[in-house]
Amino acid sequence: MTIKTSFNCILISLLLISCSEKQKEPEKKQNTTNFIIIFADDLGYGDLGVYGHPTIKTPNLDRMANEGQKWTNFYAGASVCTPSRAALLTGRLPVRSGMASGKHRVLFPDSKNGLPAREITLAEQLKKVGYRTAAIGKWHLGHKEQYLPTNHGFDYYFGIPYSNDMDMVSGLIPYWDYWQQPNDSIKTEHFNVPLFRNTKIIERPANQNTITTRYSDEAVSYIKQNKDKPFFVYLAHNLPHIPLFVSDEFKGTSERGLYGDVLEEIDNGVGKILKTLEDEGLAENTIVVFTSDNGPWLPFKLNGGSAGLLRAGKGSTWEGGMREPGIFWSPGQIKPGVVSDLGSTMDLFATFSKIAGISLPEDRILDSHDLSPTLFDKAANTRKSILYYRGTEIYAARVGDFKAHYITQGVYGQFGEKIEHETPILYNLNQDPSEQFDIAEEHPEILQQIQDAVAKHNSKLVRGEDQLADRE
Amino acid sequence: MTIKTSFNCILISLLLISCSEKQKEPEKKQNTTNFIIIFADDLGYGDLGVYGHPTIKTPNLDRMANEGQKWTNFYAGASVCTPSRAALLTGRLPVRSGMASGKHRVLFPDSKNGLPAREITLAEQLKKVGYRTAAIGKWHLGHKEQYLPTNHGFDYYFGIPYSNDMDMVSGLIPYWDYWQQPNDSIKTEHFNVPLFRNTKIIERPANQNTITTRYSDEAVSYIKQNKDKPFFVYLAHNLPHIPLFVSDEFKGTSERGLYGDVLEEIDNGVGKILKTLEDEGLAENTIVVFTSDNGPWLPFKLNGGSAGLLRAGKGSTWEGGMREPGIFWSPGQIKPGVVSDLGSTMDLFATFSKIAGISLPEDRILDSHDLSPTLFDKAANTRKSILYYRGTEIYAARVGDFKAHYITQGVYGQFGEKIEHETPILYNLNQDPSEQFDIAEEHPEILQQIQDAVAKHNSKLVRGEDQLADRE
Repeated sequence: MTIKTSFNCILISLLLISCSEKQKEPEKKQNTTNFIIIFADDLGYGDLGVYGHPTIKTPNLDRMANEGQKWTNFYAGASVCTPSRAALLTGRLPVRSGMASGKHRVLFPDSKNGLPAREITLAEQLKKVGYRTAAIGKWHLGHKEQYLPTNHGFDYYFGIPYSNDMDMVSGLIPYWDYWQQPNDSIKTEHFNVPLFRNTKIIERPANQNTITTRYSDEAVSYIKQNKDKPFFVYLAHNLPHIPLFVSDEFKGTSERGLYGDVLEEIDNGVGKILKTLEDEGLAENTIVVFTSDNGPWLPFKLNGGSAGLLRAGKGSTWEGGMREPGIFWSPGQIKPGVVSDLGSTMDLFATFSKIAGISLPEDRILDSHDLSPTLFDKAANTRKSILYYRGTEIYAARVGDFKAHYITQGVYGQFGEKIEHETPILYNLNQDPSEQFDIAEEHPEILQQIQDAVAKHNSKLVRGEDQLADRE
Repeated sequence: MTIKTSFNCILISLLLISCSEKQKEPEKKQNTTNFIIIFADDLGYGDLGVYGHPTIKTPNLDRMANEGQKWTNFYAGASVCTPSRAALLTGRLPVRSGMASGKHRVLFPDSKNGLPAREITLAEQLKKVGYRTAAIGKWHLGHKEQYLPTNHGFDYYFGIPYSNDMDMVSGLIPYWDYWQQPNDSIKTEHFNVPLFRNTKIIERPANQNTITTRYSDEAVSYIKQNKDKPFFVYLAHNLPHIPLFVSDEFKGTSERGLYGDVLEEIDNGVGKILKTLEDEGLAENTIVVFTSDNGPWLPFKLNGGSAGLLRAGKGSTWEGGMREPGIFWSPGQIKPGVVSDLGSTMDLFATFSKIAGISLPEDRILDSHDLSPTLFDKAANTRKSILYYRGTEIYAARVGDFKAHYITQGVYGQFGEKIEHETPILYNLNQDPSEQFDIAEEHPEILQQIQDAVAKHNSKLVRGEDQLADRE
């Protein structure tokens, strides 16, 4: 009897285990990978050690790249802040959401609108299966309450809602001195930017000297508080966008000067986050991504970054404007190596959705490709092209190795002439990453292929109503 | 009795051990670190994955850098072949040995002279304590018998004694087509370069399609044959100097095109060498260094390399002409990390001498600094300056972070105007590695410091008799 009872108990136990495992299995697949996006502002392709900078020391980001995947053909969704951020969070080209405009390139403190409520953000998507979601840092998708992160799928927000050079106290400083050497006369209190917690302003002007480390520390706290649930942390630093500010601990530490100090403070925060994940036993089921919103703001000279061997920078549709470091880290999950496949910040939407087991919305066109075959197995992903919009116009398009420039223009702040090319300029970007040697004449058939891809895109394009145009 | 005998035997044995250990100890210190220098030709600062190239895949060199030290302020001794190689092997500026000239920049197949016998090469230095020494690859320090490696301290030579574009079969090919895209009409038999084993020509024209892998395989054989002795292998690839040739195995494999194929074949050879060292148990007592003789030959467009974010290339005294990847590997010995201290190929002479316990020659001025404090302990080394000679003239000088340009001129093959600057141009290279922002006006005191260092150098300079001027 005893034996039989025991046997039955075991049997029942086995059935229970089996049953609960059956129920748990899909839940596990859906919900147990956490996601962290660390998003820098105006950081160039060449600004990290592992991407070739000689004197900016980024040991934590280098480690992420060496233990994970270093992507070398990874793109921001646009070459300036607002549309780039809209692209990342919606998985859609900003021209679809109305977050690209022919009138203004970004939102300003007197802008009336923001990311429309009808857009589905990555946070809203992940909340469908119960993720806890936090936005920490720069938002720049509308600063009015209805546009803030907490009204776009984030449970929590802590940050400055737009660029750190906005709300400048008028008449106080010769702003364009920033085009020259670092200028100690520029103070954080000269920029009256607000710091929000959720929908409330808790500090104004935000103390930008300490903001980078405060952002990283907020991320660490959020991870610790939510370690038992699946979570998504979108950590969007306000820096190294000018004006450059750094905490005392990092001031004067980098051989690269103030810009390097700022990056090394960001890198230090990356180290804290990785350590937290490791200490909490979360490293193997958390994917950490590092990238930036657009290329370096070159007219600011040493206060701007470097695109390395890429041409031009922020605001332009040359490679330096939109190609960025793209680092994916999750020990055991992400197959380590250098990846030269095409990728975009817009792809994070489909990739995280796939990993979390969430269907993609079917009522709209997405520009998002699932990168998980490449991340987990180094297999090819489905992205084969990149569109380079400037505002609402396609300036250039890449298909495979080749990029055609239809229109070219200077970087943000030094716009120069807008040149429409009767015969587009054609480069093989994998052979000629610095965009030096036009091969359009030898390869009309490639130009035609790219033109066909652009025509196909245009034929299905529904433009969202311009959300950037109206200002008070 | 038995016990006593045994005791005595033990005592004697102990004494013998003690005695032989005493004798062995200095020998061990002197002789048990092997040295391998892998020297590329015309490879740019930006041409390796770990130095930021997006599509050239160099997993073995990346591994060397990640497991060892990646130096980011490491310089060749000159901006073209012959003087750069003389500098590395003698630890002296080429102007001292006569291997720099105001008439010709390098040796040619009709040159009469070569590296003078009075110069002490690194091979001769290491032979003082019994090293086995091999030169494999490009020599370019004189092709007549008395100048060949076997008359300069190397036990063994296998290679092409000058550049792979020399001895061109006349009238056969439009050589400057190489300025354009890769040209399949260029064949290895169009370059009648000889391949030597020791002092004998064993193949002419050398089959350049297979030469890269043959060089690496020779190095592997030499290591295996000499694994029980201390050895020094100087493996100087002829490539990626134009004309570019690659073996069938690597043809068409790189996204970067032919230039990438060539580098990936070199990288593959690096992998074979590291594996051999590991398989033979030699990794922990062999230091492997990878660097290049000068920057990329830019006028050859896609057949030349990339200096990454550095300005200009081969032949010039801008950073792109002389700053190179510098990777040091020896697991357990070399402390891993990124190093931005100054270093030069000339420093290998003093560094290897120190490690092998050999005194430096006292009858001549050396330009060689011991880098071992940095390699082993990340302590500062004694090098604080770099002189940028073009031929026999100082064009620029770096002291600490700062570089003054006294004369500037274009790259090799597109010489342009020689400009003597009344006020030198001054850059902070660690802040401004691309040499964009002249700060001479703000820092006359730094210009003066550099000028003082140059004057001190000049006051002691004895110029060697020009060995490059005479041709048949």
